[in-house]
Amino acid sequence: MDIPTKMKGLALLEDGYANAPATQELTDLAPYVELRELDVPQPGPGLALIKVARAAVNPSDIAFIKGVYGQARVKDQAAGFEGTGTVVAGDTPLVGQRVSFFAAGSGSWAEYCLAPIPMLIPLRPDLRDEDAAGLIVNPLSAMAMFDIVRDDGADSFVVTAASSQLGKFLIGLGKDHGIGALAVIRRAAPAATLQELGAADVLVTEGDGLSDRISALFEAHSPRILLDAVGDQISADLFFAMPEKARWISYGRLAPTPPTLTQLPQFIFKQKRIEGFWLASWLRETAPEKIGAVVGEVQARFAEGTWHTDITASVPLDNALTELPAAYSQKDSKVLLEP
Amino acid sequence: MDIPTKMKGLALLEDGYANAPATQELTDLAPYVELRELDVPQPGPGLALIKVARAAVNPSDIAFIKGVYGQARVKDQAAGFEGTGTVVAGDTPLVGQRVSFFAAGSGSWAEYCLAPIPMLIPLRPDLRDEDAAGLIVNPLSAMAMFDIVRDDGADSFVVTAASSQLGKFLIGLGKDHGIGALAVIRRAAPAATLQELGAADVLVTEGDGLSDRISALFEAHSPRILLDAVGDQISADLFFAMPEKARWISYGRLAPTPPTLTQLPQFIFKQKRIEGFWLASWLRETAPEKIGAVVGEVQARFAEGTWHTDITASVPLDNALTELPAAYSQKDSKVLLEP
Repeated sequence: MDIPTKMKGLALLEDGYANAPATQELTDLAPYVELRELDVPQPGPGLALIKVARAAVNPSDIAFIKGVYGQARVKDQAAGFEGTGTVVAGDTPLVGQRVSFFAAGSGSWAEYCLAPIPMLIPLRPDLRDEDAAGLIVNPLSAMAMFDIVRDDGADSFVVTAASSQLGKFLIGLGKDHGIGALAVIRRAAPAATLQELGAADVLVTEGDGLSDRISALFEAHSPRILLDAVGDQISADLFFAMPEKARWISYGRLAPTPPTLTQLPQFIFKQKRIEGFWLASWLRETAPEKIGAVVGEVQARFAEGTWHTDITASVPLDNALTELPAAYSQKDSKVLLEP
Repeated sequence: MDIPTKMKGLALLEDGYANAPATQELTDLAPYVELRELDVPQPGPGLALIKVARAAVNPSDIAFIKGVYGQARVKDQAAGFEGTGTVVAGDTPLVGQRVSFFAAGSGSWAEYCLAPIPMLIPLRPDLRDEDAAGLIVNPLSAMAMFDIVRDDGADSFVVTAASSQLGKFLIGLGKDHGIGALAVIRRAAPAATLQELGAADVLVTEGDGLSDRISALFEAHSPRILLDAVGDQISADLFFAMPEKARWISYGRLAPTPPTLTQLPQFIFKQKRIEGFWLASWLRETAPEKIGAVVGEVQARFAEGTWHTDITASVPLDNALTELPAAYSQKDSKVLLEP
């Protein structure tokens, strides 16, 4: 295969971490990345070079380019954590294969990127590129967090930002395993869709009498796990309205204003807990066979149509700075980048 | 033994729980309890009647009379969770014995009270009444929370309100087991005492440059456990300044204003956690043999002088309403009630 020496990519403008907190909202890409001609990266030991077909744009990517993700930025490197494409170089029998990948060293928002060979996922031919581009971050997070729900023996669980792609995956998992997802959304528009996907109940936080509506919902379902991508005062209020032994599992922060712990004694007398979920930690701490099994199940779910990635737009790299923020801000479906 | 039918006691004025949050500070007893002539309670099955010698006044008692403890108030019953005295009735061979007890059904702030027989602690003769009056709540909480520190494999831990009786017990345990207690206090006055008791370091929160001083302290010690009785923004700031996998274990709330979670992503990327400790849960969930062993160790620590209860005042029941609030507000030692 003919590999050029130069490529287009969205390069990071800053090193390391930001000094101030920031959310995962995106109004403008220009402060963080720049479309540039970059050297095509060379795969060192354990790495493969991938010709990117589609790259995902996840909330974690936005946190990363802003410098508020759990991993330091490297200036002038291409951004982008995951995608799908073809292996074109590296010490692996997968050269020539179509894979999903998690980038390392040089990101997926470019024509070529690097990815660790052990984490390459060879794809079933019946898997759409739209699903393959985001096969790791959201699907594996959904599977891993749903395991927390199952291990807790819960009958129901709460999902905030429930109309996100990850939220919809969780609702589907709940439906399939008979554990009711209580879908929390800000505005009523996606409510019917979420109910069709199998949500046990939908709570719209906009509007009057929220606190009474929360009480009534939790009275009916007694959920003990809150899977939360928002991190605002409503998240905290949901948590404090939950019954004994409730666990607030934070996995993202969409909200700009931090929550206040208005009912601290609940940690003591109701044995409640706040903790976090990070896919990177889960991947480090989970046995490779278990990860392999989960990846297999994820592919099967997409191929069989149990899960489906809704795509807002597939934005060409060249147009990312002008088109990506608006496309990304439509929360209910996914945006891809196309080199 | 001649048991009268009437007794003096501090009776609760309210039922159930308070509607609003409240701290464990005490400025006035009158809204919560009243000195009254009460019927001497009758011990039902499993209960013993105790002639109270000394009763403890703990932060949990103050939370309870205010209606913000994890247990509902029963109007007209005597308040008070623990004390020491003599068993005078009940289906137990301990009748006539001097014991420490945890009250149930009728509290220890009275001449007589009820206590569950399985939890009676027969006392070594060499144990002072001053230590015996508070043998359960603070000492067992200290032992149980120190177990959390040990189980975590920590080299050091943070204790807020460190000049409290419980704080001092924890500092002593840390010293004896080579795990450095980092003692956090508001004002500098008790610093020397805490250092003598064996604190690895003392942090005074009053004064300039607190955030830099916290950073320097944690740089030197890397504590992963925060045992916190305060629950204010400084507690939160300490927690967020701690390294990866830090756990904020809340066991009380002295502060009136709730903390804000200014660095929510740390739950995700640094695997931090907030949880609570409640002695009542620990007693429910711990094997009786283990509890017995801990109680034995507690008595030994007091009898041998490893631990020592500092007494501010022993206030007669008759003077409780006028004298208790001022005596209790001297935070660095313990107040007892004497029927």
